[in-house]
Amino acid sequence: MSPPGSRGKVAVATLDRPEATHTCCPHFHQAVELVGKRWTGAILYVLMHQRGSMRFSEIAHSVPDLSDRLLSERMKELEAHGIVERRVSDTAPARVEYELTARGRELAPALNELKAWADRYLID
Amino acid sequence: MSPPGSRGKVAVATLDRPEATHTCCPHFHQAVELVGKRWTGAILYVLMHQRGSMRFSEIAHSVPDLSDRLLSERMKELEAHGIVERRVSDTAPARVEYELTARGRELAPALNELKAWADRYLID
Repeated sequence: MSPPGSRGKVAVATLDRPEATHTCCPHFHQAVELVGKRWTGAILYVLMHQRGSMRFSEIAHSVPDLSDRLLSERMKELEAHGIVERRVSDTAPARVEYELTARGRELAPALNELKAWADRYLID
Repeated sequence: MSPPGSRGKVAVATLDRPEATHTCCPHFHQAVELVGKRWTGAILYVLMHQRGSMRFSEIAHSVPDLSDRLLSERMKELEAHGIVERRVSDTAPARVEYELTARGRELAPALNELKAWADRYLID
């Protein structure tokens, strides 16, 4: 635990409520905005429920209303964060497939908990 | 579990990989984009780690770089989704405080799992 006021953390103790010290964690903030970025959660959900790798077109078909351009952008972001691995076969024509890395698969507990919450509270 | 093709679900079985059937759940999608909306995760994190209610200014100080205008917008969204309760005291001057509802507190397992993932993988 870093001391209050250390790099990247903000601690607050208001004058009238000196016991109120809260911190907002930059790692958590980064993670929640990464996973929650438009369409990223849905893409991760689809990859998480797949045994093995998926082709671009398979992901595209599994996430409705998502353009190929935006899907391509999201896959590059997930690859850059080490969450998805992109593999190109040495066959002709080349076949491009995507799979979650170990780091990506370890998002499953968080996403499963969120799924359980959604199923309980977000009723049609 | 809804059958493939039921309302709000999209199922895909590609011709060359007929076993590949994936669905992308609208409830989950809605939840992940709600929690991951810019600043919302950080606000929930701060409220989750607070015993009892928080004043607007306390939340504002605990989430750096977030404008009052945007914080106000986010609090209204969270209130509309039944995740946060807004209370106004009958004192003068009136005191406005925010607290997570039961529904909001039940996001804790998902957010804690995401925090654990972030602490493991998002290193400075």
